[in-house]
Amino acid sequence: MPEITDPTLNPDLKSWLSSANDPATDFPLQNLPLCSFAGEQGRPTIGIAVGDCVVDVDMLMHAGALGDDDAARGLHDAVHSGVSNFVLASPVLRRVLRERVQDFMLDKHAGQQGRRLRDKAVIPRAGVARFNVPCIMRNYTDFYASIDHARTVGSMFRPDNPLLPNYKHVPIGYHGRASTIVPSGVTVRRPLGQTKPDDAAAPAFGPTKRLDYELEVGCVIGEGNAIGEPIGINDAPGHIAGLCLVNDWSARDVQAWEYQPLGPFLAKNFATTVSLFIVPMDALAPFRVPTPARPAGDPAPLPYLLGEGDWSLDITLEVLIQSAQMRERGLSPLSISRTSFANMYWSLPQLVTHHTSNGCNLLPGDLLASGTVSGPGADERGCLLERTWDGTGPDGKPKPRKAIELPSGEKRLFLEDGDEVIFRGWCERSGFRRIGFGECRGTVTPAKAQ
Amino acid sequence: MPEITDPTLNPDLKSWLSSANDPATDFPLQNLPLCSFAGEQGRPTIGIAVGDCVVDVDMLMHAGALGDDDAARGLHDAVHSGVSNFVLASPVLRRVLRERVQDFMLDKHAGQQGRRLRDKAVIPRAGVARFNVPCIMRNYTDFYASIDHARTVGSMFRPDNPLLPNYKHVPIGYHGRASTIVPSGVTVRRPLGQTKPDDAAAPAFGPTKRLDYELEVGCVIGEGNAIGEPIGINDAPGHIAGLCLVNDWSARDVQAWEYQPLGPFLAKNFATTVSLFIVPMDALAPFRVPTPARPAGDPAPLPYLLGEGDWSLDITLEVLIQSAQMRERGLSPLSISRTSFANMYWSLPQLVTHHTSNGCNLLPGDLLASGTVSGPGADERGCLLERTWDGTGPDGKPKPRKAIELPSGEKRLFLEDGDEVIFRGWCERSGFRRIGFGECRGTVTPAKAQ
Repeated sequence: MPEITDPTLNPDLKSWLSSANDPATDFPLQNLPLCSFAGEQGRPTIGIAVGDCVVDVDMLMHAGALGDDDAARGLHDAVHSGVSNFVLASPVLRRVLRERVQDFMLDKHAGQQGRRLRDKAVIPRAGVARFNVPCIMRNYTDFYASIDHARTVGSMFRPDNPLLPNYKHVPIGYHGRASTIVPSGVTVRRPLGQTKPDDAAAPAFGPTKRLDYELEVGCVIGEGNAIGEPIGINDAPGHIAGLCLVNDWSARDVQAWEYQPLGPFLAKNFATTVSLFIVPMDALAPFRVPTPARPAGDPAPLPYLLGEGDWSLDITLEVLIQSAQMRERGLSPLSISRTSFANMYWSLPQLVTHHTSNGCNLLPGDLLASGTVSGPGADERGCLLERTWDGTGPDGKPKPRKAIELPSGEKRLFLEDGDEVIFRGWCERSGFRRIGFGECRGTVTPAKAQ
Repeated sequence: MPEITDPTLNPDLKSWLSSANDPATDFPLQNLPLCSFAGEQGRPTIGIAVGDCVVDVDMLMHAGALGDDDAARGLHDAVHSGVSNFVLASPVLRRVLRERVQDFMLDKHAGQQGRRLRDKAVIPRAGVARFNVPCIMRNYTDFYASIDHARTVGSMFRPDNPLLPNYKHVPIGYHGRASTIVPSGVTVRRPLGQTKPDDAAAPAFGPTKRLDYELEVGCVIGEGNAIGEPIGINDAPGHIAGLCLVNDWSARDVQAWEYQPLGPFLAKNFATTVSLFIVPMDALAPFRVPTPARPAGDPAPLPYLLGEGDWSLDITLEVLIQSAQMRERGLSPLSISRTSFANMYWSLPQLVTHHTSNGCNLLPGDLLASGTVSGPGADERGCLLERTWDGTGPDGKPKPRKAIELPSGEKRLFLEDGDEVIFRGWCERSGFRRIGFGECRGTVTPAKAQ
């Protein structure tokens, strides 16, 4: 693993904001993820999460707390626009912002003027009226990079041949809908759609009966590329600004009926929830781990996908669920799956390179989601389609699905109205501060009356 | 067919601009399609095509030629932004702009001041430095609404069962890539990609050998809808601002290898060319024709897709091709297909309603492309995949493809470097002026060296 020499990752850095020093926080001084929130007069404002607060970056800048050299002047327009895409687009601006906000939050600073600015510009997150999607995600691509997910889902439809012949050669992906990306916390209405059970003569239109989540990691593009100019595999890491959590909500019964021959469409595009913070790749450097060798017999990636360095990331990911009844009775959310992002078959740089290999351009802020993250174990499965699957019986037919039992006594095969789905993600390694993603939350509301 | 009473469609209207009165022009006074061009200092400027000119709408507005009432004030910000989406979003603004630009172009106006403005604001299109994509197309969806296309392509892969069971129930669609939409005239680089011929043991990476065009009609959204709020079938026409031509370039060998199970991705997203002008639905009203009754045995559309009125459109569409050698030798482009948009199985309002039926929102300027438009005849096929297909032989296997012979003596199964593909579209009906779409052009340039 590469040696970590980045001074912004020094675990001994301490902040005057005590919540940033809490070993359990997702947002120590070493993280500093970007977000967008309703600042003064509700204006979209770039923030950085620290401890239980958010730093109003625009206010820091105007107070001169980010310096007044060329680098600070470079930040000025980018930050003042209120759109974090301009910061994301430039590795230099991202780094300058990281270093200076970290410096402002360090214990060493004092003085009355500094304290006044602290009070104004460092706001408890609980008091923020609204968080937006953390940047403008103009284009959204969803991949299928977990081989455990592809294999389990494949086994439902093709028990003899779960993985299609292209899987180990092509990082499979498709375009999602950018307009329905919503920030964590926004409710998601159960969609209507066409479905046709196998035993029905004709399809019907109505609320989905198989509403599902998909646990994914989102890769947010920093610097883009021009149309016609692919990004080589060893340049790809430099185009990734940071990561977030993604819930790619799915209506499985709609998907089953509509997806041939052009892929998922209305089964997916009614909503995609993203977490509020873009965790910088700088903060994730300590958690890069060697990519496991491909099993004997697996083909090597084609040369354009074969790069240097280790780009697997050991991010622990967890899914929790809380029904309306659980909320009313004060029962905590139930953890139903936990896995690691290190299980992925294709790395993020491979996804970036493959995506641009035909000349397709990526724009700053574009979202490349990993696809459902599942591990090999049954309790590591990142969607209910897999999680409540119980395999096939001796007759080769699917066994009845195995319901998840909630502490309220309710059972779940798929999501019910009122259920809240919560994703969490974090990284831990001895000698480094814990780096977290915050939460990606969404509650299901009833379908629109027809 | 509905009676046409719209005074802006009166065929007797005459302009002081003689090219607008030419019976062969695509852009008479009755059309008035929106575009975006590089205006003063190269600034994106909203234009309207008339005859062989483009009207600089911003300049007209500033000169007071669009009036100074409430309606004109409503136009001010929308036009001055240089982004036509704000005009598109409002049926009222679109109509006001249409009526007032038509009025300005009418023969009745004179006076020295008017003439000076004419000279400044009505510019020969041949002298415009650059046309942009006609609006910001934030989201791009591609449908599959021609049953003749679906049947011919299906017969290549499933001779016994060309149409999948969902086709006559679900308007099949998928999300395309918005970032690679380019305006007519921009060259398209042959993409690199993974392909695996059936007889190869492993895939290889290199330039596509089966580059294709797809002749499509693009539906540009006017007023959008909120997330979670479907657009009913009888409201759908009101959300369509206008139409353009679309070339959904496709790499067929890449598509064949990558598209299972999530649909086309890199085979399509390297480029999509759109024509320069959004022809308003107002201008197309005379060309609405009764939707042909579904053949006996076909299911009726589900109630949510069953609307009032006739929404088939009789637009003649033509594909022409000109190789580099033809250009060099002064040989005109060869027309290789001609069909009518009236052949579509699903209407544009059905596509809009289906797209939003699950609560997915559409934004002003979003592009909904029809999918390849093919008719029943062999010379009505809208892509080379179909056009050079010669069916299956008595052994059930595909016969060799039948090449198109160019006037230069060259032959084409798929596109070669240097080929220019040109789409044209127009509507004609006795008692009305011809309404045209202009051209959608793109020339193939060689693949990037690896």
